[in-house]
Amino acid sequence: MACLSSLLEYGTAKVIVIRSRVVGSVFRLIQFLIILYVIGYVCVVQKSYQVNDSVISTVTTKVKGTGFTNISGLGAHVWDVADYNIPPEGESSFFVLTNMIITPNQMQSSCPELPDQSTICMSDCDCTEGSSDVRGNGIQTGLCVNYSETVKTCEVLSWCPLEIDTDLPENPLLAGAENFTVLIKNTVTYPKFNFHKRNILPDVNSSYLKQCEFNRITDPHCPIFRLKDMVAEAEEDFQTMATRGGVLGILIDWSCDLDFPEHYCGPKYSFRRMDNKNPENNVAPGYNFRFAKYYKTTDDVETRTLIKAYGIRFDVIVFGTAGKFNIVPTIVNVGAALKILSLANAICDWFLLTCTKRNKLYHKQKFDYLDETNVNDGESTEETTFGTQ
Amino acid sequence: MACLSSLLEYGTAKVIVIRSRVVGSVFRLIQFLIILYVIGYVCVVQKSYQVNDSVISTVTTKVKGTGFTNISGLGAHVWDVADYNIPPEGESSFFVLTNMIITPNQMQSSCPELPDQSTICMSDCDCTEGSSDVRGNGIQTGLCVNYSETVKTCEVLSWCPLEIDTDLPENPLLAGAENFTVLIKNTVTYPKFNFHKRNILPDVNSSYLKQCEFNRITDPHCPIFRLKDMVAEAEEDFQTMATRGGVLGILIDWSCDLDFPEHYCGPKYSFRRMDNKNPENNVAPGYNFRFAKYYKTTDDVETRTLIKAYGIRFDVIVFGTAGKFNIVPTIVNVGAALKILSLANAICDWFLLTCTKRNKLYHKQKFDYLDETNVNDGESTEETTFGTQ
Amino acid sequence: MACLSSLLEYGTAKVIVIRSRVVGSVFRLIQFLIILYVIGYVCVVQKSYQVNDSVISTVTTKVKGTGFTNISGLGAHVWDVADYNIPPEGESSFFVLTNMIITPNQMQSSCPELPDQSTICMSDCDCTEGSSDVRGNGIQTGLCVNYSETVKTCEVLSWCPLEIDTDLPENPLLAGAENFTVLIKNTVTYPKFNFHKRNILPDVNSSYLKQCEFNRITDPHCPIFRLKDMVAEAEEDFQTMATRGGVLGILIDWSCDLDFPEHYCGPKYSFRRMDNKNPENNVAPGYNFRFAKYYKTTDDVETRTLIKAYGIRFDVIVFGTAGKFNIVPTIVNVGAALKILSLANAICDWFLLTCTKRNKLYHKQKFDYLDETNVNDGESTEETTFGTQ
Repeated sequence: MACLSSLLEYGTAKVIVIRSRVVGSVFRLIQFLIILYVIGYVCVVQKSYQVNDSVISTVTTKVKGTGFTNISGLGAHVWDVADYNIPPEGESSFFVLTNMIITPNQMQSSCPELPDQSTICMSDCDCTEGSSDVRGNGIQTGLCVNYSETVKTCEVLSWCPLEIDTDLPENPLLAGAENFTVLIKNTVTYPKFNFHKRNILPDVNSSYLKQCEFNRITDPHCPIFRLKDMVAEAEEDFQTMATRGGVLGILIDWSCDLDFPEHYCGPKYSFRRMDNKNPENNVAPGYNFRFAKYYKTTDDVETRTLIKAYGIRFDVIVFGTAGKFNIVPTIVNVGAALKILSLANAICDWFLLTCTKRNKLYHKQKFDYLDETNVNDGESTEETTFGTQ
Repeated sequence: MACLSSLLEYGTAKVIVIRSRVVGSVFRLIQFLIILYVIGYVCVVQKSYQVNDSVISTVTTKVKGTGFTNISGLGAHVWDVADYNIPPEGESSFFVLTNMIITPNQMQSSCPELPDQSTICMSDCDCTEGSSDVRGNGIQTGLCVNYSETVKTCEVLSWCPLEIDTDLPENPLLAGAENFTVLIKNTVTYPKFNFHKRNILPDVNSSYLKQCEFNRITDPHCPIFRLKDMVAEAEEDFQTMATRGGVLGILIDWSCDLDFPEHYCGPKYSFRRMDNKNPENNVAPGYNFRFAKYYKTTDDVETRTLIKAYGIRFDVIVFGTAGKFNIVPTIVNVGAALKILSLANAICDWFLLTCTKRNKLYHKQKFDYLDETNVNDGESTEETTFGTQ
Repeated sequence: MACLSSLLEYGTAKVIVIRSRVVGSVFRLIQFLIILYVIGYVCVVQKSYQVNDSVISTVTTKVKGTGFTNISGLGAHVWDVADYNIPPEGESSFFVLTNMIITPNQMQSSCPELPDQSTICMSDCDCTEGSSDVRGNGIQTGLCVNYSETVKTCEVLSWCPLEIDTDLPENPLLAGAENFTVLIKNTVTYPKFNFHKRNILPDVNSSYLKQCEFNRITDPHCPIFRLKDMVAEAEEDFQTMATRGGVLGILIDWSCDLDFPEHYCGPKYSFRRMDNKNPENNVAPGYNFRFAKYYKTTDDVETRTLIKAYGIRFDVIVFGTAGKFNIVPTIVNVGAALKILSLANAICDWFLLTCTKRNKLYHKQKFDYLDETNVNDGESTEETTFGTQ
């Protein structure tokens, strides 16, 4: 019964209300500033009342365009997408071949290693049969043979003739690649909010898509990009980048506030060179890789054409977080903000008890002191003590 | 000394306890509701007491099955995984070829461009030597030649004969691909919690894995999926999708509550078509890409077979966040919840001072007014003022 | 006017200050512990005053090294990067071929299926024309033919001769692959903080990069890794792993505290085997895939060399979150911490009113009781009641 009755008690703090214009103004000003901050910054700028989800994305790309080279020895050659796009299909990146070193008709045989410090030899004693350098091109046979009339190098078992990758064309062979276009189709999903959208927005139609080209000002929603424009947006020169290769990031930002209607949520494109073009503090600058086309001669001997492919890899990087109102972060933030609001009281108390003229009076009204010594005097005196306060 | 003694003071608010059933009940009710909310929603539903980590994942896939085509000109042809899975290996996606346009025996030479508005010509004057349209197939030679008996088009340097990609088979050539199966091996890691798990759960054994097939009801843990079933789960028709190609997302959700034992944390599979099948508001619908097989004739001339490959790309998308109890979010959320709890007092104060019969009495007891004017009267009167309250 | 004057009122709680060493000490101790916790754990350990962003990353890899095999039938063969790195270029993973089953000179024709329970036959009646098993190698012709002198199996249309994948070499053919090196170039971006960095740190120069090799103790910043070392760091044996293949994760952790200067933010490498090597509870252990090289004979018949490629796929997994001071989480956490601080009062009140000798006195001073019954007596008695308290 006592328990129940204590359950139905309600305790509320005793309050001294100070009717002072100065203190009151200070108090309201501080309160106002805190509320302004909470609404303005926490809610509007940082959207702390939202829960977030990370984007899930699928990208498909399709490059269009035809290039033309006239390499001595190979003759005129037209390159279409099946030739310059290697591998034919990537998950979210594509590669456009712009420059290359072609070594045709390689066969498994033995030939002198390319000359450098470790391969130049005087006699067979300088070569070790079976040894293989990680930077070399094959397995040494143990013989020292003529590389040129003046230089002898160790012979290696390898795909011969060896590739000589020092004479890279100074201008990209496929200079015309700058006019190729790429169609990027991107679908994003925010699984937490069951939200799905494509970068081809609902308000564009098929006939527009067949002939448009992305332009930040006139065609910001067109998903077809000219390679040159993308490189230019990243503040790079296409021809320079194409010579030694590089990696260009196509960043698609899908950050969205899903409390707004769906059509406010769209892709924002930006472009950035992702590799380091700075020749200092760098190793193997640019971007290249080797691949081979394999053939068989009529004698059933395998030959290959080795291609050291320089080019631009375009990485489509989709990122973003979507936010939507949710009660939990709201409660947490409102709770925290309320607590900050109660700081206003702490500040005003301090102002009241130190900076006002009548601070001693306020102090006496606010605080009742209960000394241990007083208490020792017994209950009767104690009551008196309080009476005279 | 004064400083030390003030350090050992303890201030506690004076409280008026109101023994009223009405006010007490209201107070306890509000308290109860807030506590209920905190426990029920914040803790149980939203798990705000946890820190989160994002999943890191590795996927390997292995497709099984053999297809059969009988294309006029090519004859009977059996397709195995090395033929239809292009490229042979992807990071977390694989492609199954289902339809194609094959253009065999292409060679670098010149031939009339495919007729359309910009390529039809009357005489050589209509063609520009060296020009290349991004939507065209090669470099114009400047000649106007017969494409057919009635139509003349500009001649281009290109891989000839040109591909005619308008007569795509209406039914997918590799219709049998619907019965192919794929084994998906997926390992996930939550680095923050040092948690590692595979989608092959510990309770399945090798003999089961050799013959099982995923079924949402009977075999939900089998990592072997029939292609047709996955497409059906995404509410699409395999044969329709296979004709023009498409992208199917295999979504694996690894969201886990790691406060529970490890075996509660498992993969949840779902399937979704990721590209847009809607023919309106679309460009290049479906999914296709071109690749070529290169050969050399006995005269050392390069020829190629160009294949425009239509098919389904399966993207394995692994996502999820794991949560585990952590003291920091707990403190933050409990702190915020406690602050919300103190709202109960604010509400009850308002109720007490406005809605109860004796609100004036409560008001008088709770508040001591300290007017600026009173104060001006000096300390003596002030004391009197308080005495008569 | 009344409204305005009430706006300028300031209410502050009445406080009883207890000058007791015991209570004061307890209070200060609890306060100290809470503040210690907030500063120590929330701020220093968990950095709750920061906002976070997830990493965006680009990876390029370049493998170096030459392997040598001497397979019976094929003869001596040197393997360079264009041969063993399949496909030539991945987004953030690369594959190194270490073991293989080669089936050369396959042609579209018919041959007896490999013998197993479902393919062994007595007569043509046991075979079904046109049927195709998902685990088989082709389309049955309906004939039952001699597989060997003692066994008859159903004939299939397929690439013949069929691959016999049971005699995998017990030691990896390309055992020398353990000495290959890989250069990993990794650029990361935290878009929220406009932060960009590479794994090639500014303090390393080109000449060092040309010859260094990663070593956790002596060369922790060198981005060139020997394959054997990486596998060893994952506590695996290279030769064992190379025989049946596997997936090795190269984890690069870019977790950074961006309140510190930029050069404190660097990559932390770790290595982990991602697939399951445990032969129990496993299907298709290791990692392998099939690919083919296509040739044409002089009669224009397509032949292929099928390669079942076993090897190690290296997945470069970049992860991490960066944190930077931000006012919103700081406010939220300080607010919550302050609220926790106010728990100190609740604990002390409880201590004061139950555990101290003079708890009844404190109780009387802190609480004014206002009974419903008292109140019913009218205002005059009420005042008396309070006077005698």
